[in-house]
Amino acid sequence: MDAVKIERFRRALKASGFEAAVAVSPENTWYLSEAVIDTQKELLERLAVVVWAPDRQPIYIVCTNEEVQARKESWIQEVRGYVEYQQSPMQLLADALREVGAASGKVGVEKWFLSVAYFEQLSRLLPDAEFVDARPLFNQVRAIKTADEIRRLESACAVTDRSIRKAFEAARPGMTEKQVGALLTTELITGGAQALVLQVLAAGVDSESTHQRAREYVLNRGDLMRTDCGGVFDGGYMTDMARTISVGAGSQRQRDLYQFMWDEHERLIDMVRPGTTCEDIYRSHVESFQRRGWDMLRPHIGHSLGIGPHEFPLVRPGERTTLQPGMCISIEPSHFEPGVGKYHLEDLVLVTEDGPSVLSRTADWSQLFVSGA
Amino acid sequence: MDAVKIERFRRALKASGFEAAVAVSPENTWYLSEAVIDTQKELLERLAVVVWAPDRQPIYIVCTNEEVQARKESWIQEVRGYVEYQQSPMQLLADALREVGAASGKVGVEKWFLSVAYFEQLSRLLPDAEFVDARPLFNQVRAIKTADEIRRLESACAVTDRSIRKAFEAARPGMTEKQVGALLTTELITGGAQALVLQVLAAGVDSESTHQRAREYVLNRGDLMRTDCGGVFDGGYMTDMARTISVGAGSQRQRDLYQFMWDEHERLIDMVRPGTTCEDIYRSHVESFQRRGWDMLRPHIGHSLGIGPHEFPLVRPGERTTLQPGMCISIEPSHFEPGVGKYHLEDLVLVTEDGPSVLSRTADWSQLFVSGA
Repeated sequence: MDAVKIERFRRALKASGFEAAVAVSPENTWYLSEAVIDTQKELLERLAVVVWAPDRQPIYIVCTNEEVQARKESWIQEVRGYVEYQQSPMQLLADALREVGAASGKVGVEKWFLSVAYFEQLSRLLPDAEFVDARPLFNQVRAIKTADEIRRLESACAVTDRSIRKAFEAARPGMTEKQVGALLTTELITGGAQALVLQVLAAGVDSESTHQRAREYVLNRGDLMRTDCGGVFDGGYMTDMARTISVGAGSQRQRDLYQFMWDEHERLIDMVRPGTTCEDIYRSHVESFQRRGWDMLRPHIGHSLGIGPHEFPLVRPGERTTLQPGMCISIEPSHFEPGVGKYHLEDLVLVTEDGPSVLSRTADWSQLFVSGA
Repeated sequence: MDAVKIERFRRALKASGFEAAVAVSPENTWYLSEAVIDTQKELLERLAVVVWAPDRQPIYIVCTNEEVQARKESWIQEVRGYVEYQQSPMQLLADALREVGAASGKVGVEKWFLSVAYFEQLSRLLPDAEFVDARPLFNQVRAIKTADEIRRLESACAVTDRSIRKAFEAARPGMTEKQVGALLTTELITGGAQALVLQVLAAGVDSESTHQRAREYVLNRGDLMRTDCGGVFDGGYMTDMARTISVGAGSQRQRDLYQFMWDEHERLIDMVRPGTTCEDIYRSHVESFQRRGWDMLRPHIGHSLGIGPHEFPLVRPGERTTLQPGMCISIEPSHFEPGVGKYHLEDLVLVTEDGPSVLSRTADWSQLFVSGA
């Protein structure tokens, strides 16, 4: 158990004013229980639930199919099982909330995850409870990573960076995007990824779609190729990194654009310091693109990362959250150049008292990497 | 576009009595739009939405990040984009529902997927609409597969069966579960899987957890080893198959238990015929286990499969749905034998007028397979 994390949640819960907080999303139940109930991601009805009232021990509710695993992996002592299709997890949740004296109080639930169908059941079972969104509570705690979490993220990033480099080093004209993607996947899995996060891999001049998967497209000499990919490691820590290279031969125009993007990326990373707001970084990037005559229409250019793919805070307009030590922020400028291709760079940056610390680089990407050159 | 599928939905929508139906889950928006918006699975707020009123053309709402891809891949002409964090997809949805005249009528929404937070927005925007659960509509249409879907599922199953066989043929005492898992993953990915479904891989006498992932456990000669795994293929078709083998040497006890499980599996598969109910199959299995003196406490022993991991109908008590030609049903008996290990078999069975047709076998698994023997 990551005692620092659990203690931080305990304190935040006490300060929240909730009679109880209820976690129902795969991320937050994992964060609190530390048991991985994988099927919860694929079967939304098979909820795992953590109920926690201030100054009490938490209660962990899972489908009986997952009870052996929950008892084996979680530090939470009180595990209760419901038989799928015969009992609703909402019945056990309502019972637990009654037990901890929260049946008529303010209860924090994950309104951005819980389905309408389950919420209708819960509201009928506890008509006197006031259900409010618990997202701010979870966001606030999860945004600051513990030393243990930072160590896990850094090691996951190292595997991801090495995997991308190896797959891209092997890329040659005549191979398909899918072949390069299979190399990348194999490296990630053998490196320890327990699951893949969405894998974008796209080359050539028509690879504009933000989340384009590898196709049967055959690589041409001089094609720009990018990936935006990651894995899930070590129970639940995610990586999300982007790299852009040229296949076989890089033109001067590609090198120049890459250099601009790299310098911009470095400039943004250098802003990832205590006291800067997310919006500051976003606005600075928009201005930089505008000076070059480019539109920047993306709704965000980065995000916190940990056990969810986009954690709070995001680097977006209107996000006035100030960066604090312990936050891990992904910075990801990108640009599509018609007739040339798409550039995308993404690294994970830890905010420290002394400034930014990049967690995600094992190889040198400071100049356009040309495979097979 | 799979015109048979779309036409079937059109007819069911007209018969539903809904002023409009709204798809918001990754499965159902994909089913209707045929564009893969991968991030919808990982970022629940980044909804893609299909709004469809009877006798009209559907409207497809996506985050602007995904608009290029949506326009490229979907057959739906009317694509609308919302800027993430600046506009809510619920605003565009409410506008579309008003446009098609459904602002004060009965609107089918996916209450088992839509989050409470989005639903609260939608209810405020359209206070006069009556929102009812659209799950029965989608279930009914999706349960019957078209010829095109059956072809895709069969080809995905073939890759999965060959991948398991190859990985298991290579398993030797001294290897770790993780090494066998990496082989399996590599085979699935190079065979065309665009993503993995939860991969259970477990050996030895203490591998009871239903969804145990591969560990550092070192295989012993004579260990029972099982996998329950699959991939996502061809846009969105899933596989889900289980196989059990012995590593290096199979004992007589293992062979006898395997034979019982195999015969039981075959017997259940033979029941997958038009007119049988799901509950009939479940009850028959419980009785068979009881005759052997075994408890059978699992909430289901199979499920329909297609673009979701557990589709309607499930093979469970109380499920009185009658099997019909075109349904694809996964049958999966399993049994944990203390001191020996866990047996699990799972195959996908197509219901035809003439009886069951197993879609998921390329290798012979009718006797306990012993790797390296």
